[in-house]
Amino acid sequence: MAAKKIIIDTDPGIDDTMAIFVALRSPEVEVIGLTTIYGNVYTTLATRNALHLLEVAERTDIPVAEGSHVTITKGTKLRIADFVHGADGLGNQNFPTPKGKPIELSAASFLVQQANLYRGQVTVVALGPLTNIALAIQLDPEFSRNIGQIVVLGGAFAVNGNVNPAAEANIFGDPDAADIVFTSGADVLAVGINVTHQVIMTDADREELASSKGKFAQYLSKILEVYFSYHHDAYSTRGVYLHDPTALLAAVNPSLITYTEGVVRVQTSGITRGLTILYNKQKRFEEVTEWSNKPSVKVAVTVDAPTVVKLIMERLMDS
Amino acid sequence: MAAKKIIIDTDPGIDDTMAIFVALRSPEVEVIGLTTIYGNVYTTLATRNALHLLEVAERTDIPVAEGSHVTITKGTKLRIADFVHGADGLGNQNFPTPKGKPIELSAASFLVQQANLYRGQVTVVALGPLTNIALAIQLDPEFSRNIGQIVVLGGAFAVNGNVNPAAEANIFGDPDAADIVFTSGADVLAVGINVTHQVIMTDADREELASSKGKFAQYLSKILEVYFSYHHDAYSTRGVYLHDPTALLAAVNPSLITYTEGVVRVQTSGITRGLTILYNKQKRFEEVTEWSNKPSVKVAVTVDAPTVVKLIMERLMDS
Repeated sequence: MAAKKIIIDTDPGIDDTMAIFVALRSPEVEVIGLTTIYGNVYTTLATRNALHLLEVAERTDIPVAEGSHVTITKGTKLRIADFVHGADGLGNQNFPTPKGKPIELSAASFLVQQANLYRGQVTVVALGPLTNIALAIQLDPEFSRNIGQIVVLGGAFAVNGNVNPAAEANIFGDPDAADIVFTSGADVLAVGINVTHQVIMTDADREELASSKGKFAQYLSKILEVYFSYHHDAYSTRGVYLHDPTALLAAVNPSLITYTEGVVRVQTSGITRGLTILYNKQKRFEEVTEWSNKPSVKVAVTVDAPTVVKLIMERLMDS
Repeated sequence: MAAKKIIIDTDPGIDDTMAIFVALRSPEVEVIGLTTIYGNVYTTLATRNALHLLEVAERTDIPVAEGSHVTITKGTKLRIADFVHGADGLGNQNFPTPKGKPIELSAASFLVQQANLYRGQVTVVALGPLTNIALAIQLDPEFSRNIGQIVVLGGAFAVNGNVNPAAEANIFGDPDAADIVFTSGADVLAVGINVTHQVIMTDADREELASSKGKFAQYLSKILEVYFSYHHDAYSTRGVYLHDPTALLAAVNPSLITYTEGVVRVQTSGITRGLTILYNKQKRFEEVTEWSNKPSVKVAVTVDAPTVVKLIMERLMDS
């Protein structure tokens, strides 16, 4: 069977780095490009980090397309999570400036181009705010049909958010874009923090990583310090959530999760801005609602966490 | 032990009727007044129905204070659930006009007066939108301290709403008022549809009610037709949710439920208007949020549904 083509839309980011490295070590998929977005860092730095990570991996054959620097409706103040990932997004390690450059195409144009080139065969794994994907949908009315699947790391379904009690960071980063993606009719799978909070790398896992001779394991065991420290302060946990690599593996091997289907809408204003609400279709409402007559998406419900952690560890320690 | 004084804020309403009748048959509580509000019907009809129900119960000694006809911020179109309860709110039975009249005091003034008279001893059981309670809080800065407890039938915590996927009907009816009540510092217990959807009166229960000689059972078995029919259409269930009597019994006997504590805020605009979000305090957020530095309330989590149904049936069939 041919490897599944994937494009990773990313704001590296410590767990983005893990996801990218796991993808590069996954024979089931072929990474055909990285697109960059703000979130953990500003977009310019995300692009620099994406190029840097491909150089570390010796995979400079993979193109990097720079994405949007602003939210889709503009004017929204960006929320940059440097307190989670370090000022450089990679654990404050003073990595050298990459030699590579992004391609001329914007992230949205690259997404449209690849979706056209390989109709129904490209999976986008979106690890940051959904601006680039929404722009691709606006750029090409056929995009939502041409793209194979969009796996979104985002949302907090029936649980508290991680930016505030209502909103998860990636959806909060551009709620308007997220609502466009969820209602686009594309085959969307949302992997929210209700699922990724079950997938934890412990202190012991990190020590195992540090003792490995694998290149990626060595790289990661350095940059993880900031990420572990943040989790300890924010959640009082001795371990970190593996958000991005979990979403990546859900794209690589869908049998690692179960999902439900329904219409998802995003609140775009007020105190619950960035909130995701899934309509589970258990009630027929008297009135027409904002969820009526909209296409359904898939929302992850359970995850085989032990297997996901095991796969992440194995692939990162592979040398 | 003296009976607990309760005021029922109500928009009767078929399940309101059950709650009022159960209260009048509960030796643990003394109903010291009914206050009326729009919701299942307009406020004028709610007042008429409250007076009618007290005449049916031969308890015209209990005062009825008429509440607000409009939401607290005005201008909001009222949503009247006559499709759930019938055009008259009582199952379309053409009941006679009551002889009684409401007292001169408004609902809010009556609530303030009684909370002052019996400091810390009055429980308000709020079965409709929270306008009257919010007005009482605005009328008297001491109200939230003087009132014993406010038991709110309202909210949809981590589940879909019943007006739309985001909002439960009572909170949707006046989201601004609800936010005032939840953040007032009063001892508030919210009993949401995540809990009341577990408490179901089946067709068999209704037949048992119809076969009883009890006055209340006879009255209810007539008006329940419309309510059963609505539930069958909306939820495909053979049974009805006992929202209001469950909240009433939670006030009568708190051991029938378990609850968690946290800050609850209400979204007041946009597609999730009327949504309730409980902050569970499991994360320390980086930024100050709209939930920061606000008083906590109690939110019901589980209910002893079999005992609640049994108590409701017993008390309604008592003759």
